Parts: sequence; C-alpha cells; structure tokens
Amino acid sequence: CFRNPVHMDSVLSGVNPDLASERLTASFSVEKLTARLDGGAEHTRMRRAIVEAIESDPAFSRENQYFQSQNERYEAAVRRAVHLQKKMREMGWTENGPEIKYIYRWLSGDIAFLLHRVFMRSISVLGSDKQVAKWIPLATEHQIIGSYAQTELGHGTYLQGLETTAVFDIATQEFLLNTPKISAMKWWPGDMGRSATHTVVFAQLYVHGKCYGVHPFIVQIRSLQDHSPRPGVTVGDIGPKMNFEHTDNGYLMLQNVRVPRENMLSRFCEVQPDGTYVRWGSQKINYFTMTTVRISILSDEVILPLMKACTIAIRYSAVRRQSKLKPGEQEAKILDYQTQQQKLLPQLAAAYAFHFINIYLHELFDRGYQEIQGRNFDSLPELHAFSSGFKAMVTQYCTSGVEICLRACGGHGYSLLSGLPSLYTRVLASCIYEGENTVLFLQTARFLIKCFMAASAGQPIPPSVTYLSSAKPGKCPAKDKLDFLSPDVYLKAYEQMAIRSVTKLQHLIQSGAEKHEAWNQCTVQLVKAAQAHCHYITVKIFVETVEKLDNKAGIQKVMKHLCDLFALHGIFSNAGDFLYDGYLSGAQMDLVTASYLDLLAVIRMDAVPLVDAFDFTDKSLNSALGSYDGQVYQRLYEWAQKSPTNQQVSPAYGKYLKPLLQNRLSKL
Amino acid sequence: CFRNPVHMDSVLSGVNPDLASERLTASFSVEKLTARLDGGAEHTRMRRAIVEAIESDPAFSRENQYFQSQNERYEAAVRRAVHLQKKMREMGWTENGPEIKYIYRWLSGDIAFLLHRVFMRSISVLGSDKQVAKWIPLATEHQIIGSYAQTELGHGTYLQGLETTAVFDIATQEFLLNTPKISAMKWWPGDMGRSATHTVVFAQLYVHGKCYGVHPFIVQIRSLQDHSPRPGVTVGDIGPKMNFEHTDNGYLMLQNVRVPRENMLSRFCEVQPDGTYVRWGSQKINYFTMTTVRISILSDEVILPLMKACTIAIRYSAVRRQSKLKPGEQEAKILDYQTQQQKLLPQLAAAYAFHFINIYLHELFDRGYQEIQGRNFDSLPELHAFSSGFKAMVTQYCTSGVEICLRACGGHGYSLLSGLPSLYTRVLASCIYEGENTVLFLQTARFLIKCFMAASAGQPIPPSVTYLSSAKPGKCPAKDKLDFLSPDVYLKAYEQMAIRSVTKLQHLIQSGAEKHEAWNQCTVQLVKAAQAHCHYITVKIFVETVEKLDNKAGIQKVMKHLCDLFALHGIFSNAGDFLYDGYLSGAQMDLVTASYLDLLAVIRMDAVPLVDAFDFTDKSLNSALGSYDGQVYQRLYEWAQKSPTNQQVSPAYGKYLKPLLQNRLSKL
Repeated sequence: CFRNPVHMDSVLSGVNPDLASERLTASFSVEKLTARLDGGAEHTRMRRAIVEAIESDPAFSRENQYFQSQNERYEAAVRRAVHLQKKMREMGWTENGPEIKYIYRWLSGDIAFLLHRVFMRSISVLGSDKQVAKWIPLATEHQIIGSYAQTELGHGTYLQGLETTAVFDIATQEFLLNTPKISAMKWWPGDMGRSATHTVVFAQLYVHGKCYGVHPFIVQIRSLQDHSPRPGVTVGDIGPKMNFEHTDNGYLMLQNVRVPRENMLSRFCEVQPDGTYVRWGSQKINYFTMTTVRISILSDEVILPLMKACTIAIRYSAVRRQSKLKPGEQEAKILDYQTQQQKLLPQLAAAYAFHFINIYLHELFDRGYQEIQGRNFDSLPELHAFSSGFKAMVTQYCTSGVEICLRACGGHGYSLLSGLPSLYTRVLASCIYEGENTVLFLQTARFLIKCFMAASAGQPIPPSVTYLSSAKPGKCPAKDKLDFLSPDVYLKAYEQMAIRSVTKLQHLIQSGAEKHEAWNQCTVQLVKAAQAHCHYITVKIFVETVEKLDNKAGIQKVMKHLCDLFALHGIFSNAGDFLYDGYLSGAQMDLVTASYLDLLAVIRMDAVPLVDAFDFTDKSLNSALGSYDGQVYQRLYEWAQKSPTNQQVSPAYGKYLKPLLQNRLSKL
Repeated sequence: CFRNPVHMDSVLSGVNPDLASERLTASFSVEKLTARLDGGAEHTRMRRAIVEAIESDPAFSRENQYFQSQNERYEAAVRRAVHLQKKMREMGWTENGPEIKYIYRWLSGDIAFLLHRVFMRSISVLGSDKQVAKWIPLATEHQIIGSYAQTELGHGTYLQGLETTAVFDIATQEFLLNTPKISAMKWWPGDMGRSATHTVVFAQLYVHGKCYGVHPFIVQIRSLQDHSPRPGVTVGDIGPKMNFEHTDNGYLMLQNVRVPRENMLSRFCEVQPDGTYVRWGSQKINYFTMTTVRISILSDEVILPLMKACTIAIRYSAVRRQSKLKPGEQEAKILDYQTQQQKLLPQLAAAYAFHFINIYLHELFDRGYQEIQGRNFDSLPELHAFSSGFKAMVTQYCTSGVEICLRACGGHGYSLLSGLPSLYTRVLASCIYEGENTVLFLQTARFLIKCFMAASAGQPIPPSVTYLSSAKPGKCPAKDKLDFLSPDVYLKAYEQMAIRSVTKLQHLIQSGAEKHEAWNQCTVQLVKAAQAHCHYITVKIFVETVEKLDNKAGIQKVMKHLCDLFALHGIFSNAGDFLYDGYLSGAQMDLVTASYLDLLAVIRMDAVPLVDAFDFTDKSLNSALGSYDGQVYQRLYEWAQKSPTNQQVSPAYGKYLKPLLQNRLSKL
C-alpha cells in the first residue's frame, strides 16, 4: 500500500483556540437567536431531537459521499428512502406531521423518491376523487413508484410547446401515447431513469383530430413483476450531471403506448366515452400550485446552502492565518482582512435577509391560499409575480454567494472535502429548475408595468406595488455617513431606484413601433427593473423584521447591523442605479462606502457566533473546513486518507509507470 | 437490461438547418479570421495537422471521460502522458519545437506529468550547472518522475510562512528535512499523490541554528525499485476535487529525511561544507520566472475555456427554440432574444479582447526577458504588476463568462455531457492557483499608487501608467448614441475612471493614522482601482489591435463591433464608476445603453461564424451541445445511453426496490 500513516497531531482534540476565542466575545445570545430563527425554543428542541435520531442511525450516514460514483450515490439514496419509511413508522413521524420539514432539511435532498412525492401531489391536485382514491393509497404504500414527466429534450419552460401526443381512440376507449420525434423525448424527470414504475406524462391531447393542449396522463412504464420496461417504452438514465448524482433523472420515449380513458387526470376536464371534451372548475388553482412550488423550494434548496457555505467559510477564515497585518506580528486570521470581510459578511447578511423574506412570503401565500379557498382569486397575479421574482432573485443571489464563499477559502475550498463544491453545484441548479430565472424576472416585470399603467389610469393596484404610484423625483437628504445607517434613508433610496426603473421602461415600451418588438428590445432592462423591485422589498421586510425584534438578548442590535450591511452593500454594488438620476450624489456614494466598510469591521466581531446560530451539526455540514471545533487541517488529512485513490496501487503503476522507470533500473 | 433502444432519428445526418443557415450570412471570411487568430495561415495548417494526428490516435481519446471515476481518470492521464512520449518520437516533435503548444492545447491539460515539467524547469532555473547536468537527463528520459512541493496545508500564497524545515547536519554533510506539524504538510502538489519518485521541496533552511529562509531541495520520495515510500516519507493523494480528477495532487510528510548537501538547488546560494552560507547572482531573475508563469497559463487554461464555452453556448442557442417572439410565428431561436444575446455576446467579445491582450502581454514579456538578459532590470516592477493584475482580471472574467454560458444553456448546460461543467470547474481553479486573485490585485494596486506618487513628485514612471499623470477633470462630450461607437470617446471614459480610482485612494491612504492600517482599510477600493486599470488597458489594446487589422475580408469591421461591445458592456455593467464623478451623465448612460443594446443585435448576425473561427474540432470540445453539426438532441441521447448508470441493473433494485414492490405482488 501507498501510505505510511503517521498519526502526528491526528487526534482531534478540543476546539481550535483561534475559533474558541471568537465565541467569547459574542454581543448577543446565540441560543436565543437560534430559537428566533426556528420560530421558538420548542421548535429548536424538536428539531434537535429529530436530527439526533437521524444522525445516530448509521443508515443515514453521508460519511463517504464525496468518494462515491453516480451508481453508488443512487444506491445509497434509495437505501435511505426505504429506510426512512421504516424510521418514520418507528418514531411515529408522519408525512403531514410537524417533524417532516426537519427530516428533509437534514437530509438536504440527498434521498430518492422526491419525485414520487411530486407524482402524488399532482394526482391529489389534478386527479378526480376516484383517481385519488385509486392511486394515492398505492403510492403511499410504495406499491408503485411514481415520477413526473413534463420536461422534454426540446422543451422546458415553454410548456405549450411540448410535443408528446395522446390521441383518444374511441374504439378501445384508450389514449395512444407517442413520442413523435427525438426532441419530444421526456428528459430530466427525477426517479424515472431507474426507479419509477409509473409516471404522470404531460402530452398534447387530440380527440377526433383536434388538439386540446397539454394534459396529464398516468402511464405505467415498468413491469411490477421484474421492473423491465413495458412494451413501447424506452427508458433510461440521462447520465452524469454537476450534482444530483443520487437522483436517477431519466429519459422516456413512448411508442403507441395505450392507457385507459380513466388515466387522464380529470379534476378539471375530461374526455367522455363518445369523445366529448368537457372542462369545468377553475384552472387558476392549478396555476397557484406551480406558484407555491417556487416558494417552497427557497428555504431548504436555496437559503440553507448559503447558510451552510457561510458557516464553513467564516469558521475557516477564523482559523486560517496568512501574511501579516503589521510587521513583526503573528500571521493574521484571514477574517481580519477587509477584502475577506467584504467577500463573506455581505453573504451572511443576505442569508439572514432571505430567511426573513422567506417567512414573509410563506405568510403571504398562506393568506392567499385561504382567500382562494374562499373563491377570491384577486391576489393571484400579485402572488405569481412575487413567486417568480423572488425565486429568481434569491436563487441567483444565493448561488453567487455560495460561489464567493467557495473561492474565499482558496485551494481548500476547491476540495470536495470542504463541502463547498457540492453546495455550489446543487444551488446552481435552482437557477434553472422550476422556471428559468430570466423568464421569471420578465413575468414579474410584466406585472410591474401593468400595475404602473393601472395606477397611472387611477385604477387600484395590489398593496406591494402601491409605492410605484408615489413617484416624486428628489434628492437624498443624507449629509453624513451615519445618516446612511438610518433605514428611512436607504429604504427611500431603494424605493426611488425601483420606481425609476419601472417608469422609465413603461415609456420605452410605449414608444416602440410594435408592442412585441418593443418588449424584446427592453428585456435586458425589464429584468433589471424586476430585480430592483425584489431587492427593495427584501430590504423593506428586513427593516420591518428588525423593528419587531426583541432587544433583550442583543439580537435586535446585531440584526440591525446585518440589515444595514445588506442594504448598503446593495447600494455600493449597484452604485450606477442610484447615481443615475442624481438621487444620490458622488459625495453621498462616498458616505455609503465609508458606512459600508465600517459595518464590515463591526459585524466581523460577531461573525462566528452569527453562523453558530444557524445551528448546523458537523454531520449536516459534512465539511472538513467547517466543523464546530475548527480542526480543519487534521480533518482534511484524515478524510483524504479514506479516498479511494489511496486504497490501492493504481493499475497505472504496473501498466505504464513501472516499464517507464524500469528503464533506469536496467542501467543500474 | 433496462433499455429498449429505439433508433429513431438517431443517425446523425448532416448539419442542423437552423445552424447551417447561420453560416450563410457571415459578414466576413471565417477562414481568414482563423488564420489571423493563429498568427498566419501556415500556423493554422500546422495546428490542424497536429490535431489530426492526435485525434486519429485512439490512445488520446477522451470519449468516455465524463463517465470516469477519479481512479480511471488518473490511469487514463498517465497512459496519455506515456503514449505522448512515443508519439513525439514517431512524429519527430520535440519539447522545444513549434508543435508543442498545439499538442498541449489540444490535450487541454488532461494528461499526467505536467508537474514533472515544472520540476524540470525549477532545476534548470534554480540549479547549478552540475545539478542541471545530473538531474535533467534523468528527468528527460523519465528515469525519475518529479513534482514540485511548495504549498503546505497551512500556507499557500504567503511563502515566507512555510513551516517545513531543512537543518544542515555538518557531521554527515546532509540536510535533515522535517514536517514539524500538521499544517506544514505539503498539500496540493500535482503528480505527487501517486506518481512522483522525486520532488523539489521548499523548506526553511537552518544552519547552526540560524534560519536563512525558504530554499529548494531535491528529495527522493519513492523507491525506484517498487515505488514504495522511502523511509520517513508519508505520501498520498489528497482526494476528490471539483475537477483535475486526472491529477494526483498529493500530500507529503517528512520525518528526519536526509538528503546530501548537493541536493539544495544552488545557482544563487549554497551551504558550504563548513556550514558557511553563501549567496550570489541576482534573485531578480527568479522573481521574473514566477511572473512569467502567470502569463503563460492565460492562453490555454483561461481564455481557451471561455472560447470553448462560447462556441458551445452560441451554437446551441442557434438550435434551441423556445417560446414565440411574435404571436402565430414558429418558436424562436433563443439566440434571438435580447436577454440571451446579453448573456452570451459580451462573453464572446471578452474572449477576443483577452486573446489580443494575451498577445500583447507575451510581446511585452519577451521584450522584458531580452532586457533582463542584458542585465537591465528596470521593467521588472511594471511586468510584475502586469502579470499580477491581468492574471487576476482575466481568470475572474473568464470564470464568470464560462458560468454565464453554462447557465444560458438551461438544464442541458448542467449535464456533464454539455462539456460546460468541466470547463467551468477547471477555469475556476485558475482564480486560486498561481497566486490568489485578491492578493494579486493588491500587488498591482501597490504599484499604481507608487507610480502615481512618483509622478506627482515629478519622477519618471513606466509607459503603461503615464496616463495616471494626465488627470484633467472634465465631462464626456458625447451627445448621441453613435458617439459612443467612437473609441476615442469610450477610451477616454475608461482612462478618467481609472485615474480617478487611483488618485482617490492615494489621498485616503495618506490620510490614515498608521500606514498599514490605512492600507487594510482601503483594500476593497484598491482592488477596484487595480481592476479599473487592467480593464482600461484591455480596452486600449483591443482598440489598437482593431486599428491595425486588415479590412479586406470584413474582419476589421466585425472586430470593431466586438471591441465596441466589450467597451460599452463594461460601462453599462459598472455604471456607478463612470457616473460617480459626473464624467458621464445619466442621459449619456442612456445613450451607452442604447448603443450597447443595438450592438447586440448587430453582432448576433455573426455570432456563429465568430465562434466557428476559433476552429475547435468536435473532439476537442467534447460537447453534446456544441458540435459543428448542431445535432444536439441526438447526441445527448446517444451519449446518455453509454452512461454506466445504464449499463446494468442497479443493486438497489434487488436490495431495496424489489422487496418494496413485492408487497404489491403478494396482494395481487
């Protein structure tokens, strides 16, 4: 074997003193902030008990994850999914219980059958009572495994363009499903490449030669006896991706596959035996479901990765020392360099900002859902605009934030063992799935322009956009750098900037020769306007949240710093948008910069306690750089030794290296 | 087996008509532009002949690369390296011949023993004539395999902090090498984890208890008989990384390892038998070597990946259709959307800009090298500032550019089969290695501040920074959007912006209480100043290059468009820096935006020919999305079928799925 292990310093003992010292000077109670983030101390207790139950069970271990192949990751994910069912029965946890969110949060999506859950949800929402009664029990008991086949090789975001066909055959009372060309092949559905027995296929419905648009059909794709593909079905795995190695994203081709008439999901429409197409109920609730999915992913799939990345990078930066700040001194912690603070601390502030906006969005959607149940659909356009814009903004910001954290850890961040590469490659996907971000921003922009025009015409507009009608050109009154620590001052700047972005475009669009042409020629700026709106709302909600916080344990004060930092970093980084119309002067921008840089030094003092408050366990972070004890070098070394590259002499030695080196031996 | 392959549309036949049509309307001669990029038609011929020779040799195939494990990638890289030696002998290619750069460019670094080349270079540069005579022939013949062990677990960019020790033992005339603690372990050296027999170890030299700083020592780490680690040596692989799976980056611990006195590289200094430390010659040439490495990586490791990413994303965007631009029309090519153009075309312009700045930097360094050989070291500080700043700027820009290309391809960009993920993860590393970018920018900033202060004191300054002394506050004279297509107008804007960034800081630094404290409090802005300087020089060189181009084949015109786009995109994206001091007004920024958006539509017409001119073969791109024929969907499907995930039924079926589904069978 290669190695000659020397166990020098290799027993992990205690907390690295450089990290321990960071925790002695916290200006607030970490435990109280954790409870605040969890929504109360009793939630923290429940979460910790669940995490403890999962982490103590070796079946859920992710210990060797960074060394596994795509095949091994898939097998482990299925093992976990099957074991989870058992565990839930043992522990008395249920799919609708309060525990479920903590379970999936800990698993970080590294489990199979997530699309099986989407399969079930789509049947519950789109299926008739009869269909629900038939399929949901089978799926609940895992007697079948479902998937959700919407996206095609040639069509993603634009659903109307899907090419799979379902032709009603009146003679047999069946639908005949076909993949007419290669671009129509289903591509990407999770759990489909190797696991699913059934899937919901979205296809263009044809009856008597007439096309009725895209509809969902339950199709069995594999035998329940031996799991082989059913006749006419071609199915497989789409191969390696940047992440999600554990998920068997699949492809699916259908050739004259027949399903009974009863397999078209028919809560809202139906093909009757004689071929009559009937539609009833409201499609709007369907639309609302798509909208809520975008919001539901934000917490675990988007904000959580940023929180983890901040935890890893900030703890590491308090341990890593490099170069000297003053001649003659010890090498400095890299967290003490302004450039490092400027990389990491705005990401930390953003993680908190998005945590609060996420709570706000969930409250908004819960209220909306209640209204809709009462048959009041007025808030739908606003909710749709919210879900589109915030999905796009939060995923974009968090992806960039995780990347900054990764790079800020230098070479060690680039090692998979840091945990940062997999956080990055995973959060990156969120910019693409559930609606491509540029398309989503444009939907928000369309809503904003519409509202602005309605307001100009004196019509009522939704509460979140009433600010658009309060446009009054002016100048920022700030005279001193401390003025920029006043939320009134920076909120007003954001508000003005957002108003200006929208009003300017409305003018441009109306000046265009043809409406659709004018629209395409403004899309770059429309995206910017939607971003400005979402950024403004995020700052506003952060400010309002801070105002409501209790200040007993020093929490309000430290959150106020983070809120100020988030706001001023946004102005500093997008200076052009604030200077453009003279709302801020160059001299005021210098004050913003000064205040922003001052804040970095203030928040740096609490940086480690602020990530400790996220309360991630070491196993959940799965990072050699980010553990609570800060023993980064020992852990990198111990983990590296477990790598398969160190488990055997490579065949390359015998085949290539030995003959090459032998050359010398023969001469000796 | 899972699959039931249906060979529908699966024969790749001809060029996709959507892509073919893009090539009919080129406004310039693609072949002539290729020759211009190669530096002449004869170079293009040589390059193509070499590429043909390599691609026709199955030993160099990268066909299954995306499916391979770290172990398999390593084995393949060693196989290629060994085969390359044979191939070079067969073809009559030599290490110093004109062919070598084309060979390594095609291989894209996916080969072993690159650090062996650095090992040889460091002996050539730092070794005495006797050492060169002893070691270089052994290494050339691969009778030994070398590595280069500088970076440690706890120390990277700050070399003075290295902790490995080399103590001179006068009794035995040997150096005693030790790794005193875990953070001193060598970590990251390429070719060391599994291949190298020898390495150059950088260690703190101690003689008679006195430390003389870091010096290089040749150390044998593995047996030449059986490749086992030598006594006192612990060596292994550092495990999985985001990329470079083929490289055995290693760790190395030394415990009382002895090497003879002759193994300290001694061109510039020596420990004599009695322990006397002697230093002679100039250290400056050594410093110059480090500087040139930063420039030498730019072409193949940084700019080439961006060119490849642009080729893939732009070809795909001419094939992919989504949604409709006008109601009733066919779905539009995504390249026709302004938002897609705004993502991709500035990256294309940047790829050309950096190609030209790279030529400029190489000429500058060649001249510098000649001066230095004539014992004139005057240009060293300027060259160092150039290499630091441009390495940082180009790597940062190209990394972000590749990421934009990846995201712009939606879900398919996220598949490894697109080739984009590996381009991204590879170019990302260039931001970290050979000097962390933030540290490098600060070195350039230090040079700029120094020059500005010298100029203020009436002292002479290097030619590239004389513009700093021409500061005259003023306003941009542009009145119309066409004015911004005048290089004089935008160059002046960049110049003013760079001058202002530097002069402002000089003031801030001098106003600080303590010099080093003031410096740390300005580093965020110092980085910006260095970026502004490099951005300005890049635009300037692009403008100068375009002026010198021949316009016979339409090349000058299309390059002028790209130059304008690069410049205006920079102003549009960093609007705050230009608006800040009123050099540009808000109204002028609207003109910049209008001109910039107009240019997107113009360059879009030539986008495909402009990437065709990079002349990448399909095998070199290794992308299912980027091939010349644009048959993206067929290729994705064909490649996916080869994935190991489709080669066998997963053990997960028998272990977990079957028992789960069996449940149903028993009830049937």
